Amino acid sequence: MTTVKAPENPEDDPRVKAVFDDIRAIRNTDFINNIWRYLAFDPALLEEVWRDVKGVMAEPSLLDPLTKEMIYIAVSIANACDYCVHSHTAAAKAKGMSDAQHAELLRLVSQAGRTNHLLNGMKIPVDPAFDTET
Amino acid sequence: MTTVKAPENPEDDPRVKAVFDDIRAIRNTDFINNIWRYLAFDPALLEEVWRDVKGVMAEPSLLDPLTKEMIYIAVSIANACDYCVHSHTAAAKAKGMSDAQHAELLRLVSQAGRTNHLLNGMKIPVDPAFDTET
Amino acid sequence: MTTVKAPENPEDDPRVKAVFDDIRAIRNTDFINNIWRYLAFDPALLEEVWRDVKGVMAEPSLLDPLTKEMIYIAVSIANACDYCVHSHTAAAKAKGMSDAQHAELLRLVSQAGRTNHLLNGMKIPVDPAFDTET
Amino acid sequence: MTTVKAPENPEDDPRVKAVFDDIRAIRNTDFINNIWRYLAFDPALLEEVWRDVKGVMAEPSLLDPLTKEMIYIAVSIANACDYCVHSHTAAAKAKGMSDAQHAELLRLVSQAGRTNHLLNGMKIPVDPAFDTET
Amino acid sequence: MTTVKAPENPEDDPRVKAVFDDIRAIRNTDFINNIWRYLAFDPALLEEVWRDVKGVMAEPSLLDPLTKEMIYIAVSIANACDYCVHSHTAAAKAKGMSDAQHAELLRLVSQAGRTNHLLNGMKIPVDPAFDTET
Amino acid sequence: MTTVKAPENPEDDPRVKAVFDDIRAIRNTDFINNIWRYLAFDPALLEEVWRDVKGVMAEPSLLDPLTKEMIYIAVSIANACDYCVHSHTAAAKAKGMSDAQHAELLRLVSQAGRTNHLLNGMKIPVDPAFDTET
Repeated sequence: MTTVKAPENPEDDPRVKAVFDDIRAIRNTDFINNIWRYLAFDPALLEEVWRDVKGVMAEPSLLDPLTKEMIYIAVSIANACDYCVHSHTAAAKAKGMSDAQHAELLRLVSQAGRTNHLLNGMKIPVDPAFDTET
Repeated sequence: MTTVKAPENPEDDPRVKAVFDDIRAIRNTDFINNIWRYLAFDPALLEEVWRDVKGVMAEPSLLDPLTKEMIYIAVSIANACDYCVHSHTAAAKAKGMSDAQHAELLRLVSQAGRTNHLLNGMKIPVDPAFDTET
Repeated sequence: MTTVKAPENPEDDPRVKAVFDDIRAIRNTDFINNIWRYLAFDPALLEEVWRDVKGVMAEPSLLDPLTKEMIYIAVSIANACDYCVHSHTAAAKAKGMSDAQHAELLRLVSQAGRTNHLLNGMKIPVDPAFDTET
Repeated sequence: MTTVKAPENPEDDPRVKAVFDDIRAIRNTDFINNIWRYLAFDPALLEEVWRDVKGVMAEPSLLDPLTKEMIYIAVSIANACDYCVHSHTAAAKAKGMSDAQHAELLRLVSQAGRTNHLLNGMKIPVDPAFDTET
Repeated sequence: MTTVKAPENPEDDPRVKAVFDDIRAIRNTDFINNIWRYLAFDPALLEEVWRDVKGVMAEPSLLDPLTKEMIYIAVSIANACDYCVHSHTAAAKAKGMSDAQHAELLRLVSQAGRTNHLLNGMKIPVDPAFDTET
Repeated sequence: MTTVKAPENPEDDPRVKAVFDDIRAIRNTDFINNIWRYLAFDPALLEEVWRDVKGVMAEPSLLDPLTKEMIYIAVSIANACDYCVHSHTAAAKAKGMSDAQHAELLRLVSQAGRTNHLLNGMKIPVDPAFDTET
């Protein structure tokens, strides 16, 4: 069940082929996952999203690759994005996340969800000490 | 503007005093920020929340302290929790997050927000390769 | 700071006056809070929203008035609606919610936020036993 | 897997039949989609929801029918409502949304999701020039 | 499709067995639903979550058991947590929620969602009368 | 109260000056609103965000400028982004949105919020007729 239709032979379009070639080269695998296969329905959108995902995941970076995947998982959980949680959890595991680290991530994200709800209910003033501009 | 009232002399209650003493000892500072001062309106809730926040932030851990603050920020942004974004950004800076790292975190979280929306709109099937149980 | 402008003399419009009169009669008070004063910028929208809010809060009902305010608070917290959290917490207190009940509500809502995040991260199958149609 | 049970012969209830007849007449089709078939479990709720959905989609209106479907899709994506994204995307396509327009909508919604996360993380002051009441 | 793997013989681990025994005793049933079976992948996380879920659902309490399930459903709907909506709706029905009460809950939660969106769009000032500290 | 600090003389940095010049030229005004003044704390992030916002708002487009602002408002409301609701409502008004159109947008977005909550609570199956790939 989907709202967009993946082209049957996406690489017949040279713009799509160029992106898929880049994905295969950078990831060193022949596996093209569904986000790219379906985004091929609009080559310009495919190019933009791939350019930006490649950009935020590129090395060198001030955040290490596994940390970036974990942050991606955290946001995706809070936004209830099924595909994103699955794909970034798989990516984090491929980058070495152990079951114990996964459990710690889930513990942290769920406790953050808890205090987020608590404070959105208490509506207390932010401490002036937290202001960056003072 | 708040929905709960901070007690005027919270440490008159020995349960509150015990939590505040623990906060001061663990953080090595006299500063008690507003979440704890307001949670003092219900000592049992204060104890529970402090126990759990202390637990997820405790060392040693499989995630380093700055990474944990960044993940906390990421969830708080996605949940639009004002107090939480401010308090954990301040905490991350206190633990050494530079402006450049902060920018990278914001870039990553906002790109995750973007692909979350994209995929929640496309509703494509999750790749079977991402299933942990197969 | 607001995106809509409250009319200066809203009751000059007879449709607005009729709604305000109904609010005063049902609530037995002269206090018209801001949602109604600002919605007066569009009398048709004001009428619709008041009709429906009055409907869900009407008695007799299968849920008691305080329970309904608490459920309203719970949804408003999860949706990060500032005005709604404030107005429904005030309404719940006016209907008798004690500080201890408020604390219990916050405990429950925040624990629900926690398990929501946990399960949105685990993405486990729903037990067939939970299906209403089987 | 569902939490409510669709009645087997919903139109045995005259209130349900009246709503279904109205849906068929207004949409000029015999197809009754699942939201209405399941809401039939409570005829009063069915009547209310249909009355209001019919109201916001009615013509003439200050927004054209396709724009309204696109706005509905945008909200449903941000709220992660599966059924809503599917049903309103199908409705938008039935009203003429091309694949290229769909791609542009997804681009826009996902960029909005990105800047929403960016600004919920930066927590900067709203420009006074944006205030409607000044 | 899941991101964590349920152990095949979870009760081989004595910490898991202790939790499962407690679940069976408190709920007076042999049925262990999936959240616990999957959380068994990390016994420490299982213990924490069970301790806290048991705590918020424990009796005596200032909120009755059915009200607590309804509030849990309300939060889970707003957070789009599939598993949570299913499990707590099933629990509420097991505690006596009728179809008519379920309809009233859905009416209330969806109207709250509506006014949440309305007010998040209007961004009006909170009435000073709602402030707990004045 | 903010988590990032706006540089005092942002245009001393030539990358910032180039973006600000482009904003002034495209919008034909000297007014640089806060998102850009604060993003100047990281010129690379400023460049990226401006490039993409300019891209989605560029003409010619398959969606007209006012429709795009309304969709931006819709997403921002659902995500509870204060700054975004204010800035895009102001932009929509500058592009001709009347008070009556604003009321209709708020009516539509809030009704969408309502049915989103209703369906996230009912969890009914998506009609096979809505599937793009069948």
